[in-house]
Amino acid sequence: MLFLDTPNTTAPHLYYNFCSNSHILLLSSMAGALLRLNGSALPRSTARRPCPSLPHRPIAVTMSQNQSYWASINAEIDAHLKQAIPLRPPLEVFEPMHHLAFAAPQNNAPALCVAACELVGGRRDQATAAASALHLMYAASFAHEQLPLTDRPRPTTQHAYGPNIELLIPDGMTPFGFELLAKSGDPAQNNSGRILRVTIEIARTMGSQGMVDGQYHELDRPQSDDIGWIEHMSKKKEGGFYACGAACGAILGGGSEEEIEKLRRFGLYVGMIQGMLHGVGRKEKGLAKVVEELRNLALKELEEFKGGKVEAIASFV
Amino acid sequence: MLFLDTPNTTAPHLYYNFCSNSHILLLSSMAGALLRLNGSALPRSTARRPCPSLPHRPIAVTMSQNQSYWASINAEIDAHLKQAIPLRPPLEVFEPMHHLAFAAPQNNAPALCVAACELVGGRRDQATAAASALHLMYAASFAHEQLPLTDRPRPTTQHAYGPNIELLIPDGMTPFGFELLAKSGDPAQNNSGRILRVTIEIARTMGSQGMVDGQYHELDRPQSDDIGWIEHMSKKKEGGFYACGAACGAILGGGSEEEIEKLRRFGLYVGMIQGMLHGVGRKEKGLAKVVEELRNLALKELEEFKGGKVEAIASFV
Repeated sequence: MLFLDTPNTTAPHLYYNFCSNSHILLLSSMAGALLRLNGSALPRSTARRPCPSLPHRPIAVTMSQNQSYWASINAEIDAHLKQAIPLRPPLEVFEPMHHLAFAAPQNNAPALCVAACELVGGRRDQATAAASALHLMYAASFAHEQLPLTDRPRPTTQHAYGPNIELLIPDGMTPFGFELLAKSGDPAQNNSGRILRVTIEIARTMGSQGMVDGQYHELDRPQSDDIGWIEHMSKKKEGGFYACGAACGAILGGGSEEEIEKLRRFGLYVGMIQGMLHGVGRKEKGLAKVVEELRNLALKELEEFKGGKVEAIASFV
Repeated sequence: MLFLDTPNTTAPHLYYNFCSNSHILLLSSMAGALLRLNGSALPRSTARRPCPSLPHRPIAVTMSQNQSYWASINAEIDAHLKQAIPLRPPLEVFEPMHHLAFAAPQNNAPALCVAACELVGGRRDQATAAASALHLMYAASFAHEQLPLTDRPRPTTQHAYGPNIELLIPDGMTPFGFELLAKSGDPAQNNSGRILRVTIEIARTMGSQGMVDGQYHELDRPQSDDIGWIEHMSKKKEGGFYACGAACGAILGGGSEEEIEKLRRFGLYVGMIQGMLHGVGRKEKGLAKVVEELRNLALKELEEFKGGKVEAIASFV
């Protein structure tokens, strides 16, 4: 049973989705290959990497075009972030911020934000600031998850800085994300209303009914992993985050309300798959069936989109 | 020597300001009385209070009108926050958020935000959301300052929740503050541009060049309190926060750029005074002279404002 009662998403039909559309069937088959590749190439490890990038593992030649699509998006987000966080004074603050911004494990919700913007006909640069903001807030949230506290065992992650710094700097990264987003408001583009709407989307996702709620309940992890609990956690954390990324991209690209909600649900399923495969309890039996179900639901949301970008975004799942 | 090199503020003249304007002299004298009263009535203690309110200590009858002005502003901010943070599901998240939002010691920067809005001719409700956002972020920042970490002694504050909760919930409060602010955007008022500008102001103030920078340097507190260090800290933390509150209020109320900058400087001096009197090192010798200097500088910024609200806002210092 899927947990699909989030107030942020319109509940989809809960059934196995055997696509009748041959294009989608083809995509589904291609996506299955990528999913398996991504499954091993994008582990939710705690290892540090100098900057986010797509998996380096060689993949099937038929995938190369989509692969370079994601790589080019991630490269733009990286470049935007590196420009936004130069090593400037106060160095003792910006150096750890720079480090922590790129220390979190791979997360593709920011890239999905840009892809969703393009899918609805927007330009890539309309979503780059929001994608960077999402990345910063995810990295801040990750850093706080690793923080050694007096009431929880020290996480096994290696720490580059003391706890004080790793508490403080992410407290600056979240506002900085909102700043980047607000600064992308441009009177010439008349996009202030969209930016404010995206601010609300991101704030809700990172806040008390989204990520924070998920993290809170993660503290209550049952002794024996339960598939329902894993689904619920994946929905609250990765699901909500990817759903937000996709919806924000669609808003910024000027998508219709229907497109925004379709992409929000697509993001939800994609994020849940990521969370279930790479998050807690990834060895749970019965996972493959739920993941397949989610993948079908995700691809169904793309059925009515047109244009060359459909194939690219479908490769995400 | 005052530290007045913040990029957020236009450096004022560094001299003792003997006002020639008799009105300001009168205000200065009245303000002196209030300053002394406030000095003891608004300690930066770590005691919890159920909700923020103006000091209850009886003050001179001549002050009662201004006193009720601040009280009414604070009551409106309180009411807005209580409505914004109802005890709704998930209760395990909203109950501690409700508690922590009102657990921080008194801070009047949010009230100054509303007062500045009114001073430039705006309506009070135009600044209430921003004031509530400022309060939430200040409370989140305070809660994290009290967090027991493995590398710093457990603060003496009593904790209502475990460290995990007191880390996590403020992580939700900051985005929630930005959400409240963004939601106050109203197409009918055509205020999206102002809201985005205020978002940037608040993000910078709470972030790496403001509050976080101040908190970082507080870790390096010298053994023997140094007046220069106290001034610098007061400027980075309380000064920056009050300056932001005043500037945001002026922006939202439709003030001119000149008015915004005057009120920003007024807020800077007021906040520095608060920080120096009630923050770290408040027993330092030589403080009275610096505080008097700051008070004169603050009142000078109000000289060109007109109307009945001038007296009210001057009573702040």
